[in-house]
Amino acid sequence: MRKVGIVMGSDSDLPIVTKAADTLKALGIPFEVHVFSAHRTPEEARNFALGARENGFGAIIAAAGMAAHLAGAIAANTTLPVVGIPCKSSNLDGIDALLSTVQMPSGIPVATVAINGGANAALLCAQMLAIEDRELAEKLDAKRRADAQKVLEKDEAISKSFN
Amino acid sequence: MRKVGIVMGSDSDLPIVTKAADTLKALGIPFEVHVFSAHRTPEEARNFALGARENGFGAIIAAAGMAAHLAGAIAANTTLPVVGIPCKSSNLDGIDALLSTVQMPSGIPVATVAINGGANAALLCAQMLAIEDRELAEKLDAKRRADAQKVLEKDEAISKSFN
Amino acid sequence: MRKVGIVMGSDSDLPIVTKAADTLKALGIPFEVHVFSAHRTPEEARNFALGARENGFGAIIAAAGMAAHLAGAIAANTTLPVVGIPCKSSNLDGIDALLSTVQMPSGIPVATVAINGGANAALLCAQMLAIEDRELAEKLDAKRRADAQKVLEKDEAISKSFN
Amino acid sequence: MRKVGIVMGSDSDLPIVTKAADTLKALGIPFEVHVFSAHRTPEEARNFALGARENGFGAIIAAAGMAAHLAGAIAANTTLPVVGIPCKSSNLDGIDALLSTVQMPSGIPVATVAINGGANAALLCAQMLAIEDRELAEKLDAKRRADAQKVLEKDEAISKSFN
Amino acid sequence: MRKVGIVMGSDSDLPIVTKAADTLKALGIPFEVHVFSAHRTPEEARNFALGARENGFGAIIAAAGMAAHLAGAIAANTTLPVVGIPCKSSNLDGIDALLSTVQMPSGIPVATVAINGGANAALLCAQMLAIEDRELAEKLDAKRRADAQKVLEKDEAISKSFN
Amino acid sequence: MRKVGIVMGSDSDLPIVTKAADTLKALGIPFEVHVFSAHRTPEEARNFALGARENGFGAIIAAAGMAAHLAGAIAANTTLPVVGIPCKSSNLDGIDALLSTVQMPSGIPVATVAINGGANAALLCAQMLAIEDRELAEKLDAKRRADAQKVLEKDEAISKSFN
Amino acid sequence: MRKVGIVMGSDSDLPIVTKAADTLKALGIPFEVHVFSAHRTPEEARNFALGARENGFGAIIAAAGMAAHLAGAIAANTTLPVVGIPCKSSNLDGIDALLSTVQMPSGIPVATVAINGGANAALLCAQMLAIEDRELAEKLDAKRRADAQKVLEKDEAISKSFN
Amino acid sequence: MRKVGIVMGSDSDLPIVTKAADTLKALGIPFEVHVFSAHRTPEEARNFALGARENGFGAIIAAAGMAAHLAGAIAANTTLPVVGIPCKSSNLDGIDALLSTVQMPSGIPVATVAINGGANAALLCAQMLAIEDRELAEKLDAKRRADAQKVLEKDEAISKSFN
Repeated sequence: MRKVGIVMGSDSDLPIVTKAADTLKALGIPFEVHVFSAHRTPEEARNFALGARENGFGAIIAAAGMAAHLAGAIAANTTLPVVGIPCKSSNLDGIDALLSTVQMPSGIPVATVAINGGANAALLCAQMLAIEDRELAEKLDAKRRADAQKVLEKDEAISKSFN
Repeated sequence: MRKVGIVMGSDSDLPIVTKAADTLKALGIPFEVHVFSAHRTPEEARNFALGARENGFGAIIAAAGMAAHLAGAIAANTTLPVVGIPCKSSNLDGIDALLSTVQMPSGIPVATVAINGGANAALLCAQMLAIEDRELAEKLDAKRRADAQKVLEKDEAISKSFN
Repeated sequence: MRKVGIVMGSDSDLPIVTKAADTLKALGIPFEVHVFSAHRTPEEARNFALGARENGFGAIIAAAGMAAHLAGAIAANTTLPVVGIPCKSSNLDGIDALLSTVQMPSGIPVATVAINGGANAALLCAQMLAIEDRELAEKLDAKRRADAQKVLEKDEAISKSFN
Repeated sequence: MRKVGIVMGSDSDLPIVTKAADTLKALGIPFEVHVFSAHRTPEEARNFALGARENGFGAIIAAAGMAAHLAGAIAANTTLPVVGIPCKSSNLDGIDALLSTVQMPSGIPVATVAINGGANAALLCAQMLAIEDRELAEKLDAKRRADAQKVLEKDEAISKSFN
Repeated sequence: MRKVGIVMGSDSDLPIVTKAADTLKALGIPFEVHVFSAHRTPEEARNFALGARENGFGAIIAAAGMAAHLAGAIAANTTLPVVGIPCKSSNLDGIDALLSTVQMPSGIPVATVAINGGANAALLCAQMLAIEDRELAEKLDAKRRADAQKVLEKDEAISKSFN
Repeated sequence: MRKVGIVMGSDSDLPIVTKAADTLKALGIPFEVHVFSAHRTPEEARNFALGARENGFGAIIAAAGMAAHLAGAIAANTTLPVVGIPCKSSNLDGIDALLSTVQMPSGIPVATVAINGGANAALLCAQMLAIEDRELAEKLDAKRRADAQKVLEKDEAISKSFN
Repeated sequence: MRKVGIVMGSDSDLPIVTKAADTLKALGIPFEVHVFSAHRTPEEARNFALGARENGFGAIIAAAGMAAHLAGAIAANTTLPVVGIPCKSSNLDGIDALLSTVQMPSGIPVATVAINGGANAALLCAQMLAIEDRELAEKLDAKRRADAQKVLEKDEAISKSFN
Repeated sequence: MRKVGIVMGSDSDLPIVTKAADTLKALGIPFEVHVFSAHRTPEEARNFALGARENGFGAIIAAAGMAAHLAGAIAANTTLPVVGIPCKSSNLDGIDALLSTVQMPSGIPVATVAINGGANAALLCAQMLAIEDRELAEKLDAKRRADAQKVLEKDEAISKSFN
């Protein structure tokens, strides 16, 4: 199976990236984690993106905050799908990172998930890899059923508690 | 090749959807277009999503404005990747549709592109389908080179015009 | 008297829902509480809405955060009035939930109250049920007078404290 | 049947109010239309609200722009349900009216619909009046089916046009 | 000298109002403090405003949060100048109160100060009362000089600390 | 009677300033109009403010757009009350001017009115001048009654048109 | 004298860039204009930045809209000062470009000017080049005096027109 | 070498200013720190700006919050480049300071950095002073390499920790 690359712009994004990594691990999807800065180590980010398809990656997750250019910088150098996680920093509640990630110009899409949405970024990559992979698709379906089951159990518990 | 499903919440979103369809056509990717409303024809939206994988779809694009729930409603009923296009309506500049599309809860991702980003939604689907399809990947690379070439030509023309 | 259905998208919304439940209890209005997710248990949410009128409900309160689709998903499947509570989550101060709840397309209204407005959602349902119920209307009037009395007492205390 | 009161803060809101009136007319619901300003004719607004229940009203729609206080001023003087329509004025895209209408303090709810949402305000009142009125409820269900039918027809036409 | 009326929509606004009261006290300006709710005790708010000029008031400060209608409700019932303080509540950082206070329709101005700007509201009233009162004007000038002096002292201390 | 000074940051603000001037003229209040830029002619703005009280002014209106510093620059150099009009420029719907005008630091208030609120700025000055001027206060009351009368007439006409 | 580089992300930004070019021309500052896309021609953008100091540039202006990464991409590859112009595109009033340009992480500053602020971007570069260039500084001072003179003339004309 | 002037509007901005000072110190750039308020000590701010070039300054950093006029007030009185740091205060997350700093009218630019961006403001000044100063430019390049090295080390550590 192709790997997922997870890159973060700063090690302050590590808690969010860890959620993505944990989700991939639970689904048995191989992945690599890197710290690349679109602005401080642009060469490394670019080289990673340029070689990603040849190096066995199938999709790339990029997490960054503030003027979050990392996902776009990766996307500019590969035609693999790139998933952007806008990270909330200490100011502006993450709206800066969201707009910097999602408002990409025509030609270079970034698949943007919710602010700090580490788990969903991983699930989105899994969904991409599962397009032609029935086994993985079934794992995703099973996770859905398990998530639903948890909601049903909460419904039962809470619903009763109000009687 | 798996098809892309393009669904819109209202026929007022047709111009944006048409950009997505044109982009897919140019890349030789089969697609279907539908008008489904998350609120007015929820059953049709749900049934389309539930059967999408079996019916040969590989990814689904959902375009909607205002409290844009369509992409989420589709995503809730399939584990295929769903790309959301937030459409600008007459008020609020599209920020309502953007937040309604991107801020999905953990477990149900929507790959969100820019407001009115029809072409990028299609390119994102193409990138997903190209993960395991070298021919399509090469088409995407060629489009990138062509897009770059256009920028280079504009650079040359404009750069000269200022001398 | 018809019941009020209170549904929440996640058990993290429980403190807000509890305010709604407490308000209904104080007014002697019967109610049921459920956890339904528009995205994780869409069938349960839909079936609840489809059967609500037959099952004796008169109005439904739906509380959800982020891309808050629950109220809309309920409203799409019933013509009972649906009251939406946008819940503040950890990012964006609740503006995402507010816009996702209130900006509904023509045909499917959601009666939206303030961010985290649990008590007001319950009062709004009570007002609806009181349209043809003089006894309940009188209870609402009495609550208004009691609320006013509290303000008058605070006015007296605070006004004096500055002399 | 109880009447719906429709009040607007300024005659510039007339186009939005007309949509509400047309919707009520189509459903056979009696209504009255008034221009009351929360700030320029506060007495008239207050007296209308104070007497509304006695005068046969079942719900009140209030449309206003900018610092839209009208719905709140009506709601402060009646325990009938009040539906607020935030109207977009020449600046700020209507976000001022939305926040001024929806962010009501505990005790005095305003059922807020989308910016300029005239038709939905009327439908919401109809839903309230239909809680105990099977005939009206059936009319609302029929309208839903008709709206759905229009979407289905658009789906068919547009879906074909892309083949 | 005419008094300043200070009214707050809720006793949760007391810390902000206290800053206004302290500022007036320091300037020797008489004042009264009240808790009036535009929505819970509208009659008391209205009566206070209607009688304010006759009762010796020269200006009125109104502090309120969320859909902050209090300043507007006071302004609708007097032609005395009304100063509005938008108060930050637990959500939305006070932008709701700011827009609800400042975006008044033509004919009924509210002199709006910064979010939570209790001291400035009092100073603004003092400036109004000082238009024809040289003694008070001189007190305001003296306060300005004292405020400037504090800045100069901080400048000296901090400037030195970096040498 | 003391004069009102009306200053604008740019002649593009003239239409808004003209509304203020017309309102003052209708009330018989003397005024002067100036173009001062906080940034391009700071000395003129400062000198105007420093001499305003001696030169017979009672209040100053300052209209400016974008990073609207003019009202603050005037207020820093006088203890006369300063009314700020945030003017909408071609971008950002006027929210930049609103925040730049209203969010003044403690010690230097600016009485802010709505975006482009020329007439209300003039009315606010009139209210300040009327604190000790019964004749002007009566003119303001008369204007209120006339404004109310217009609303009542519109109410009658529109109310009838829906029968 | 060192040249100013002006780069734009798309030829749709040409009108804004032209204002910058005209301003530099009027000051006698040499410049070059280029179209580089951070995402479509990242190599060209990068190479331009990497060689800028050696190639005689003293400062670089970068104009871009939406998720405006161009200024940051240039700044990441040079230690020359980079001035960013956020360009308003068809959605969101330019706030996306503003946040994407200004919210740069520590280590890589972008000197951001107002949305669409072409002339100011050029003036800022001129100010930088004038730090050690008295002649250019004098030109800037002269322009200031000329700008002030225009305001004074408008003041005189408009001030008179109201008498 | 020319000095950098660092001015802050209030001593509450000291932590942010200290980052700027530390950055300049590390680069061996001389600087002075002052507390000047655009509104409380406008004369001192103005005089500092008017004399800055003569007094050996090459650039000025101005840090202020809320309606942050300080950078503009400095820029209005010098043609030296002025760098504005919008400081987050207790409300509105710093967006008020950002817009008040960056949205300067044509003719008077302020080079704006990120909210609370003290270090970047200093780096920007260093970049300006380095235009004609090879030694300083080399220091900036060295800092870039050191910053990059830190990212590379984090990449190595974190990348390994996931294996």
